[in-house]
Amino acid sequence: MLTKDELEQFWAEGNKTYLDHISIDCVVFGFHEGQMKVLMLKSKNEKDWYLPGGFLKIEEPIDDAANRILKDRTGLEKIFLRQFRVFAAPDRTKHHNDLYHDNPFFKQRFISVGYYALVDFFDVTPTADAFSEVCTWRDLEDLPTFQLDHELIFNTALDTLRLQLSYQPIGYNLMPKEFTMPELQKLYETILGKKLDRRNFQRRMLGFGILNKLDQTRKGGAHKAPYLYSFDLENYKAALKEGLKSGW
Amino acid sequence: MLTKDELEQFWAEGNKTYLDHISIDCVVFGFHEGQMKVLMLKSKNEKDWYLPGGFLKIEEPIDDAANRILKDRTGLEKIFLRQFRVFAAPDRTKHHNDLYHDNPFFKQRFISVGYYALVDFFDVTPTADAFSEVCTWRDLEDLPTFQLDHELIFNTALDTLRLQLSYQPIGYNLMPKEFTMPELQKLYETILGKKLDRRNFQRRMLGFGILNKLDQTRKGGAHKAPYLYSFDLENYKAALKEGLKSGW
Repeated sequence: MLTKDELEQFWAEGNKTYLDHISIDCVVFGFHEGQMKVLMLKSKNEKDWYLPGGFLKIEEPIDDAANRILKDRTGLEKIFLRQFRVFAAPDRTKHHNDLYHDNPFFKQRFISVGYYALVDFFDVTPTADAFSEVCTWRDLEDLPTFQLDHELIFNTALDTLRLQLSYQPIGYNLMPKEFTMPELQKLYETILGKKLDRRNFQRRMLGFGILNKLDQTRKGGAHKAPYLYSFDLENYKAALKEGLKSGW
Repeated sequence: MLTKDELEQFWAEGNKTYLDHISIDCVVFGFHEGQMKVLMLKSKNEKDWYLPGGFLKIEEPIDDAANRILKDRTGLEKIFLRQFRVFAAPDRTKHHNDLYHDNPFFKQRFISVGYYALVDFFDVTPTADAFSEVCTWRDLEDLPTFQLDHELIFNTALDTLRLQLSYQPIGYNLMPKEFTMPELQKLYETILGKKLDRRNFQRRMLGFGILNKLDQTRKGGAHKAPYLYSFDLENYKAALKEGLKSGW
């Protein structure tokens, strides 16, 4: 439990350091071998859980702020990070406005800029913040109760990520350097939460022109050794910017 | 030219009415029969042009604010409107911070929430605001010099719209109730700024399941009468929410 003194010190500092009315919330999706989780924090003062977040420093670029917040919670730098939506319902922080009503910083209306991030959860050291007793990965099938509008933020991030698979490449920071087509398909299936047709997946993925087929095959299995692929980084980066070739 | 009194009155009011640090900028794309334009305003005090914009009232939902701003500039209500990005470079409004340095409201850092809108430009009555001498449609091939970071906002909106054609239906508020496939193709070509293959377009568009083929054909031309289509509104709305079937 945070003491009143701790809170007051934090917010006295907050008022000098951060821009009023702007917050940042991050949906960090963690992947590893067919599993998908989301990074969450358990509040000290409340029973509910929340997404990693923070505020924007007075002169700080907003992407830098999101990276700073994520570095504090994950230990990672240069995370794949995308701004995806602003959450701005006038009463979205009413619960906190009331709970921390002694504090002028927390009594404000906050417009929250939502980011999503994609990481390999084996690379991450989850680290609690001043308001949390624990920071940990939660399975998508076993999510806790969310604080404020954080369930909406989470669901919007997941919907956006799934939609963006239609025009945006994915996997560069989530796959090993060399991988088989079934391994890449597994990543897509994990994100989409459904099985995909093997032939359609391969045809479509090769059509994007973002993969290099390697000379080696994956040895050691009982079946015919599958081909290995790597990402064509130049085409991958172009597709991130301009959209996949599947477009019009 | 705005007088000092006019400015002071506006901003004294602004300070009581609007939330600090948040602004809204709208990229309004106007279409009609193969043409695409963008709504812009010519500043009274400066040579450059800007996008329709405004501020967020203290208790106002942000989508309501964007709709209010667009109604003021276009006369239209219930415009197709999408939030697409936040623009937050710390120095993005430096020019105005300096130009209006006497005024506390305008001296702030503003985080601008970008929206794009799609309208038929024949439906619109462009209406200037207090800072502009004219509000009018500009051709995409003949754009003026933009104020502040408005060129970045415009380009980001156009890139986003083009990318979103891969997974989002378009045209319900831009096409007549009944239309031919070449007419719909023309809309896509106008947005993308390039020609598309007729057969691929038809095959892909029908695959989405958002069109009803009507019994009537378009009479009167020299060629074989083309079939008429209308949008299947139920499927169209589902695709707006969940993405087009072309997805994974």
